[in-house]
Amino acid sequence: MKAGPSQEDVRRHNLGTLLRFVHLRGPASRATLAESLGLNRSTIMALTTDLTAAGLVREELPRGPGRRAGRPSLVVRPESTRVYVLAFEVGVDRFAVARVGLGGVVLDRREGVRTRDSDPAELLSVLVAGARSLIRKADGDAVCVGAAVGFPGTVRRADDMIMFGPNLDVGDLRLGDALSRRLGLGIPVSVCNDANLGALAEHERGAGVSCDNLIYLHGDVGVGGGIIAHGRLLGGDEGYGGEIGHMIINPGGRLCACGAKGCLEAEVGERALLHHAGREEDPGQAGRDAVRDIVVSADAGDIVSREALHRVGSWLGLGVANLVNVFNPGMIVFGGTLRDIYLGAAAPIRSVLANGALASSREKVKLRTAALRDDTTLVGAAEFAFAEVLADPVQVLARLRAPEDTPV
Amino acid sequence: MKAGPSQEDVRRHNLGTLLRFVHLRGPASRATLAESLGLNRSTIMALTTDLTAAGLVREELPRGPGRRAGRPSLVVRPESTRVYVLAFEVGVDRFAVARVGLGGVVLDRREGVRTRDSDPAELLSVLVAGARSLIRKADGDAVCVGAAVGFPGTVRRADDMIMFGPNLDVGDLRLGDALSRRLGLGIPVSVCNDANLGALAEHERGAGVSCDNLIYLHGDVGVGGGIIAHGRLLGGDEGYGGEIGHMIINPGGRLCACGAKGCLEAEVGERALLHHAGREEDPGQAGRDAVRDIVVSADAGDIVSREALHRVGSWLGLGVANLVNVFNPGMIVFGGTLRDIYLGAAAPIRSVLANGALASSREKVKLRTAALRDDTTLVGAAEFAFAEVLADPVQVLARLRAPEDTPV
Repeated sequence: MKAGPSQEDVRRHNLGTLLRFVHLRGPASRATLAESLGLNRSTIMALTTDLTAAGLVREELPRGPGRRAGRPSLVVRPESTRVYVLAFEVGVDRFAVARVGLGGVVLDRREGVRTRDSDPAELLSVLVAGARSLIRKADGDAVCVGAAVGFPGTVRRADDMIMFGPNLDVGDLRLGDALSRRLGLGIPVSVCNDANLGALAEHERGAGVSCDNLIYLHGDVGVGGGIIAHGRLLGGDEGYGGEIGHMIINPGGRLCACGAKGCLEAEVGERALLHHAGREEDPGQAGRDAVRDIVVSADAGDIVSREALHRVGSWLGLGVANLVNVFNPGMIVFGGTLRDIYLGAAAPIRSVLANGALASSREKVKLRTAALRDDTTLVGAAEFAFAEVLADPVQVLARLRAPEDTPV
Repeated sequence: MKAGPSQEDVRRHNLGTLLRFVHLRGPASRATLAESLGLNRSTIMALTTDLTAAGLVREELPRGPGRRAGRPSLVVRPESTRVYVLAFEVGVDRFAVARVGLGGVVLDRREGVRTRDSDPAELLSVLVAGARSLIRKADGDAVCVGAAVGFPGTVRRADDMIMFGPNLDVGDLRLGDALSRRLGLGIPVSVCNDANLGALAEHERGAGVSCDNLIYLHGDVGVGGGIIAHGRLLGGDEGYGGEIGHMIINPGGRLCACGAKGCLEAEVGERALLHHAGREEDPGQAGRDAVRDIVVSADAGDIVSREALHRVGSWLGLGVANLVNVFNPGMIVFGGTLRDIYLGAAAPIRSVLANGALASSREKVKLRTAALRDDTTLVGAAEFAFAEVLADPVQVLARLRAPEDTPV
């Protein structure tokens, strides 16, 4: 039970809210901001003045044609090239690093493939090299305000320790700490579950904007999940929430990498699909391309591929039915390889959903593919990295721009 | 995105926070309130003055022995007998009505049994009769500030319409509206899912006080669920969230009342246990007493009862494992008949949980029985009914005490 905020807290909150508005919705006139945030114009002016002085936004006359009569309302625009974050994605088979500007603009990126048996030190080196090359190309006065990594495993919130990554062994590497030290930018690097970040990304910039109860299902080798409930990422007690891939839907079924049998991941993950399609033993048959091949073959009429997709789709439908009953979400979003699987198996998924979920919760739920396609993790990592500066913009920027003045 | 609150909003919030504090934690000195809420003593004094004038609290000298030196800090006490709510519980086999005072004191109650085929009009009549008899015994100046009903089915939040109650047919009765009209107190009557209320009750006054991520599982004839995530009841898009009883854990298993096969409810509900114990055909074998009989028999060494409990417990363990993976809760609470089943089958439940859940999420989760025992629904209904007055105490009370002045 907490008392209401002080006037200083409210001002800080309002600075963050205004900045978040232009960050997520794009440049906006003072008039639009006043109306959307429910504040009067003099308050808006005071807030934009502070944000401008901090170098977070700039104000300019509206571009292009518009109403000519009267004094035009100044447009507030995020300083996309001067304020940025670093977003990292570590997948089983690939990695990516991006420099993302305030406003969500991907300014620059590096990506590459990984081999499944590469070691943690090698991973760290490629990530650092990618980030450094991005930083070198940034403007001289640009400031990096945050960094985050998306990772396909469970991560303990308290210390960003990776607890369980059955499809990607990083030993006891503290990835966030190691990256932060090697980059030397004076900012911490957060590590988050990739599907949690995917949920955040689709909720803020993808298929689920304006949907406050959303579930994101991500297929890589394994199956991850991220849950947005009441507009907020569901983390649970220690940040492990959303491990939907390990919901057991077929007791005694296929063995999962976690040791249990019949987990959603074991029944609908990459290995299950390759197995049912008779491609498990093919050398070189793995990853997103292998999954896409099966969907393409099925589409072209290949019976074995069709049956494999139908089988995997039916189990996926059962998992979706359970989620619909437990969460009553407004939307379920399929990303990673599950995006392809959903496109190839929508019929069995919908059919099992219709039989397995209560009508009340089922009737209005939307099934969608990830609007951000292969960038869900990267965009989510960027949004996560922006969180601190959006919570307290002026203070955070002052600290980052003048680190020598900051008491340690 | 919302701007920060106005000073008037903050004052209203602080009035509610102070009232909620003494409502949930009991009488507290001004000094304790100042420290706990992080407000200075003059603000606390102003707030208690307003709440006292509204008749919601009273201030008195501390009772009993204590420090004698200096001026004692006045103790703020909720006006339990003057400010109350009506809490209704509708079960499959029983009903209850209680008058619950501010502070959570059950001042008076009526309860009775229902036959499973009784009609909606009869249900309405017994509830109204019970409530009227409670109201008659209240003090002359007491004011009823809210009312809520717990019901074993899914309820649409927008209009409190009961959408699905497979174990209790109430036709198209709008229970809340009907009760509100018949009681004539000028207050709406909310209708909520009973297990959702159980989660609220155990979170605020039961086993899960201080646990912000909690799942409550309630056994009656069916199995209901209530989820507290980040301290808040998870309702989903339309209020149907928490239908854990219809999570399919055994595809192709026992037929459920919802039409699907192998739902948690179908595998661990009353009917499953009676079936496995060979008591399904016994006339008169139904309800909580029948479930308790089996637990007692098992405890006394009856093999059939033991095996029935073991089987049901194993399925319950699988359901719990799934919840642990998906939510990473701090606690799972068993209520209603599942309280008895947990006490009789803790070993298989824990064993399946150990094999089915990820170590990271499993290690710290606590399994507990409902501390409020058979009163989870009733206590939850009372808390739900108090919500409005706790959100804006002075305004709500002014409106209720002077209804003739209120514009319609």
